[in-house]
Amino acid sequence: MAQTSEVRALVFDVFGTCVDWRSAVIRDGQALARARGLTVDWPTFADQWRREGYIDAIARIRSGEEPYASSDALFRRMLDDLLARHGVSSLTEREVADFALTWRRLDPWPDVVEGLRRLKQRYIVGPLSNGTFATLTEMARYGGLPWDCILATELRHTYKPLREAYLMAPELLDLRPEQVMLVAAHASDLRHASRYGLLTAHVPRPLEWGPDGPAPEPSEPAFDYVAHDFLELARRLGA
Amino acid sequence: MAQTSEVRALVFDVFGTCVDWRSAVIRDGQALARARGLTVDWPTFADQWRREGYIDAIARIRSGEEPYASSDALFRRMLDDLLARHGVSSLTEREVADFALTWRRLDPWPDVVEGLRRLKQRYIVGPLSNGTFATLTEMARYGGLPWDCILATELRHTYKPLREAYLMAPELLDLRPEQVMLVAAHASDLRHASRYGLLTAHVPRPLEWGPDGPAPEPSEPAFDYVAHDFLELARRLGA
Repeated sequence: MAQTSEVRALVFDVFGTCVDWRSAVIRDGQALARARGLTVDWPTFADQWRREGYIDAIARIRSGEEPYASSDALFRRMLDDLLARHGVSSLTEREVADFALTWRRLDPWPDVVEGLRRLKQRYIVGPLSNGTFATLTEMARYGGLPWDCILATELRHTYKPLREAYLMAPELLDLRPEQVMLVAAHASDLRHASRYGLLTAHVPRPLEWGPDGPAPEPSEPAFDYVAHDFLELARRLGA
Repeated sequence: MAQTSEVRALVFDVFGTCVDWRSAVIRDGQALARARGLTVDWPTFADQWRREGYIDAIARIRSGEEPYASSDALFRRMLDDLLARHGVSSLTEREVADFALTWRRLDPWPDVVEGLRRLKQRYIVGPLSNGTFATLTEMARYGGLPWDCILATELRHTYKPLREAYLMAPELLDLRPEQVMLVAAHASDLRHASRYGLLTAHVPRPLEWGPDGPAPEPSEPAFDYVAHDFLELARRLGA
């Protein structure tokens, strides 16, 4: 275990780690379906939007296969594609644009707001996310996430898990990498953060992909902390 | 007066507008003087640090006369210079480094925390400042400034009053310039913001340069709002 007594800032993965994106997409999709008489498999729609529109699209940008585009642009591009794929053609531009902003109206997991409030007493807290600066700012207002600052990889036109995306946190906060700990539900995110010198805390979120979703990646002995939720993490960190 | 009903975000000049930098520099200087037996004219020291080390140095960078350096670096460079000029040579590197961080320990004017809390109910609130991201983040924690996000011109390696420094606010917040209002004590800052399409609110701070300081620049009819403090501004904006 690395030296954790020097940690000054906790930075958080957001989609999946802090907020339940899947329920929100299903909720907003169902509301739209009721209003406009649509029949769509919203859980499948939500998973495709997240996996193909965000995770896969970002991987193509990281590899240089596609030019940089903000994650808001990726969400919107994929939404147009998915609506067509699911046979939805009756929505107005305004309805589609508003649906794309669902990603700013995501509810935090039940432990998150109180956990962040406790952690903030002792540490700088901020998201370190591939969501845009605007999306992360609006989402914090929607869900009451008490961030000290917004660290969006958009600020450097990069994406996790590239090196620059992790190192922007200590750089912008005037800290050394080992003074920053990444908190994430995803083991791969933590492995990359660790490679670039940040400390790691794993908070698995087994419901991220729904009750029938795949099992979460297991914790690894190399992670500095493992906790079931942010409240346990706060206790473990003495906050 | 411009159309203010569409405003979604209020961005704030910080040094002078939100916080009383002068009293803090004098306070930390006097503490150091007591501890180390120094005799220094701290009010003069504070004014030189702010004017020559920050305002004048930033102007040289904007004009291209000097290469870009962060405002933290400028503060530190000027501190070394001023200590020598005031005949102080007995401080350790650690003491000097800590004194340079005085700019993160500035107290808000008395109306600021409560005013921001009210304004935040209705608007996104964030600093738009030439202070660094780290300095603005730490200062918010020190003084309890409830920002939604930190807009440091450092993020674009630019400085107010250059165009890019103002337009980064609407760009990063996914808004149009006329949906953003700058709140500042300095008329020149507001004139530039207005030129680039932002709305303007003038909150003069007659004590910024101390009780014997120069009279503040007068308000101008073109400003969208003029208020004595953030509480009055909140009332005027219905927040």
